[in-house]
Amino acid sequence: MADDRLTTAELRDAWALLSGAERIEGFRQVDPVDADDFFLGLSSREQAQMLLSMQSGERRLWLRLLAPDDTADVVQEVPREERNGLLELLDDTSRGEVSALLAYAEDAAGGLMSPRFARLRPEMTVDEAVRYLRRQARERLETIYYAYVLDHEQRLCGVVSFRDLFAAQPNTLLADVMHTSVVSVEDSLDQESVARIMAEHDLNAVPVVDEEGRMKGIVTIDDVVDVVQQAATEDIQKLGGMEALETPYMQTGLGALIKKRAGWLSALFIGEMLTASAMGSYEGEIARAVVLALFVPLIISSGGNSGSQATTLIIRAMALGEITLRDWWRIAQRELAAGLVLGLILAALGFLRIVIWQAIFHTYGAHYLPVAFTVAISLIGVVTWGTVSGSMLPFLIRKLGFDPASASAPFVATLVDVCGLMIYFNVGRVILRGILL
Amino acid sequence: MADDRLTTAELRDAWALLSGAERIEGFRQVDPVDADDFFLGLSSREQAQMLLSMQSGERRLWLRLLAPDDTADVVQEVPREERNGLLELLDDTSRGEVSALLAYAEDAAGGLMSPRFARLRPEMTVDEAVRYLRRQARERLETIYYAYVLDHEQRLCGVVSFRDLFAAQPNTLLADVMHTSVVSVEDSLDQESVARIMAEHDLNAVPVVDEEGRMKGIVTIDDVVDVVQQAATEDIQKLGGMEALETPYMQTGLGALIKKRAGWLSALFIGEMLTASAMGSYEGEIARAVVLALFVPLIISSGGNSGSQATTLIIRAMALGEITLRDWWRIAQRELAAGLVLGLILAALGFLRIVIWQAIFHTYGAHYLPVAFTVAISLIGVVTWGTVSGSMLPFLIRKLGFDPASASAPFVATLVDVCGLMIYFNVGRVILRGILL
Repeated sequence: MADDRLTTAELRDAWALLSGAERIEGFRQVDPVDADDFFLGLSSREQAQMLLSMQSGERRLWLRLLAPDDTADVVQEVPREERNGLLELLDDTSRGEVSALLAYAEDAAGGLMSPRFARLRPEMTVDEAVRYLRRQARERLETIYYAYVLDHEQRLCGVVSFRDLFAAQPNTLLADVMHTSVVSVEDSLDQESVARIMAEHDLNAVPVVDEEGRMKGIVTIDDVVDVVQQAATEDIQKLGGMEALETPYMQTGLGALIKKRAGWLSALFIGEMLTASAMGSYEGEIARAVVLALFVPLIISSGGNSGSQATTLIIRAMALGEITLRDWWRIAQRELAAGLVLGLILAALGFLRIVIWQAIFHTYGAHYLPVAFTVAISLIGVVTWGTVSGSMLPFLIRKLGFDPASASAPFVATLVDVCGLMIYFNVGRVILRGILL
Repeated sequence: MADDRLTTAELRDAWALLSGAERIEGFRQVDPVDADDFFLGLSSREQAQMLLSMQSGERRLWLRLLAPDDTADVVQEVPREERNGLLELLDDTSRGEVSALLAYAEDAAGGLMSPRFARLRPEMTVDEAVRYLRRQARERLETIYYAYVLDHEQRLCGVVSFRDLFAAQPNTLLADVMHTSVVSVEDSLDQESVARIMAEHDLNAVPVVDEEGRMKGIVTIDDVVDVVQQAATEDIQKLGGMEALETPYMQTGLGALIKKRAGWLSALFIGEMLTASAMGSYEGEIARAVVLALFVPLIISSGGNSGSQATTLIIRAMALGEITLRDWWRIAQRELAAGLVLGLILAALGFLRIVIWQAIFHTYGAHYLPVAFTVAISLIGVVTWGTVSGSMLPFLIRKLGFDPASASAPFVATLVDVCGLMIYFNVGRVILRGILL
């Protein structure tokens, strides 16, 4: 019998390929000793799917294994009509805690915290505190390693780590050993700011307080890893020119996958239609000097690439809190300088390309030199414009109250492509007048 | 005097704008009670810069504040010729530990771990273990909350949390309460895999062992937050078409900033030169039907955008371990279907655009309908090709042993743009033969 058991590693490997029913089947074959760790390691969405596929007794068993913050996440993953059914499986205390958590926005500190933290009173001695925490060790507290000292109105007076308690004299009062300059966050603060504050202060746990300063729960560093990972994934997908997926790629259905991509792809397409209009207004030039048309893709892709470098850098630095809106002018100066240098480099490459091809293949006709100058000078203009507008647009979009990660890419692309064409053909008009045009 | 003190919040706000000397100056004005937390919260690079600007006595004081893993990070940030000078400021034990850590690659588990973990023996009782850890509470251990049970050859037999010890009978042997199925990582494993394993198993600390299974240190979850954040930043910057920066944007000098961008921008430019050759081979078609040239930017940007969506999705899913190389065929099928649907949507939009503009502005001449069909059919081909090649190239690049995040964007761009032009002009040749061509 024991030989037939699945190991959790085997089940985890096959997981993505299994249907809901197969997952339950596989899960029941796992050694019961490891099954709880496996279940706790699943995402909230997967836990929700598993629970919905279980019989009611089994469902209660596994639901009650979860801490209240995790239970709240699971409840948010199930269809609205199933939620009460799940909540009814909880004991009264847990149900109260979970309901309180569900009132918070999922992406706020309140939605991330656990209400099960260790509470102490300032008038306790170190020895009393240790004995109290020792009794709590078997309870379902999020952690006993950080304990919070509250007054009678639940206001946070200080924090002690278990280690502090161990290192202190047993009969000292907590009021004398606790740290009173405690970093805390408000329950409405967004998750990513919570993560940033914890990283900045090197905290393993941060207390969450309400508007009146009453302590409501704690956020521990292990919850923050998920927040950081998820926030980065969303930003990466938005920068890739699409809406962020709600589920991992392989678990996202084809319909949802297309829906998340079609919206921005169409918006980008409609924006880029302006390039057809821009090209249309230079139709005469193209007819007279077809050679100009040959470099259009090269020119606009260079603008697009330099713009995408700048946008990416600025948006990530904003997300990490490295730069704020008031830094815009310093950044504009830096990016202007960077854009000019990068433009010069590409201009030199482009110039060489035309001269060398002309020498070998005689591709570009008698007037290859003015054409080469047109391309080179346009590249300086287009790359500089791409770099500056790519770095400044995220500031503008954020100032207007939108999310720079999702809105910047399409605007930069359209702006840089249309303006790039205008720069190129106008440089051409000046340099090639009387020669080709 | 006390009124003149800087708060750490004030200093942190001004930090990015201060020179090295000003930072030291500001740091000395901070209340000594908060100065250590402030110093510990700085990045390794900032700590290194501060230390190098200090007098030697002050330097020793602050260097010795750091845990050995953090010291090793700082030593790696200073110029090679300064390293021995710093190491000599450490006490003998710490110097030995730091030197051992420096032998590991910075981005491996061994370079991330702390060697100061709590060691217990299987034959100790719970009570002995608690008393032993209590004595260690004042020592500079990374954590006393997880303790590792080692045999006489330093091989890992099990792990106990402090909480387990508190919940157990005092006279039980550790061998009877410890968890023996311990997840551990090898010291040569890369950091990002360590992060993934800890997230998968919901671990707050993971033991690091060498090839012979001897325990060398622990990685704690707070170190992993930085790893996750940094890995995401590197991937975002690489996806933006540049090398990853080594320092935050505002602390990167203009020269370094340009250098990180110029390489890939030039590589992309040289790749995109192929578009000029591709366009050149359709010069005759463009001369006869200038209207074809007008839609070139629209066609290639649509291919580029759909390719960039697909590449971004796949690379992020790879980084998160959601998909592996063997999933390529399932993904190819999904992306082919997605590409066809997305292509149809853009084709419909493009067709409508031409027909409506023609009705209003009479822009595209008598043969606007075949032109509209050329654009629409090309869009289906270009978007499908962009989606499929954008999703498959990361697999190919990874299979060849390169980093898909940094190499995919330029290859996808060039491949999609050049092939997009070929699709477009060849569709035009077929549809417009005898009409415009």
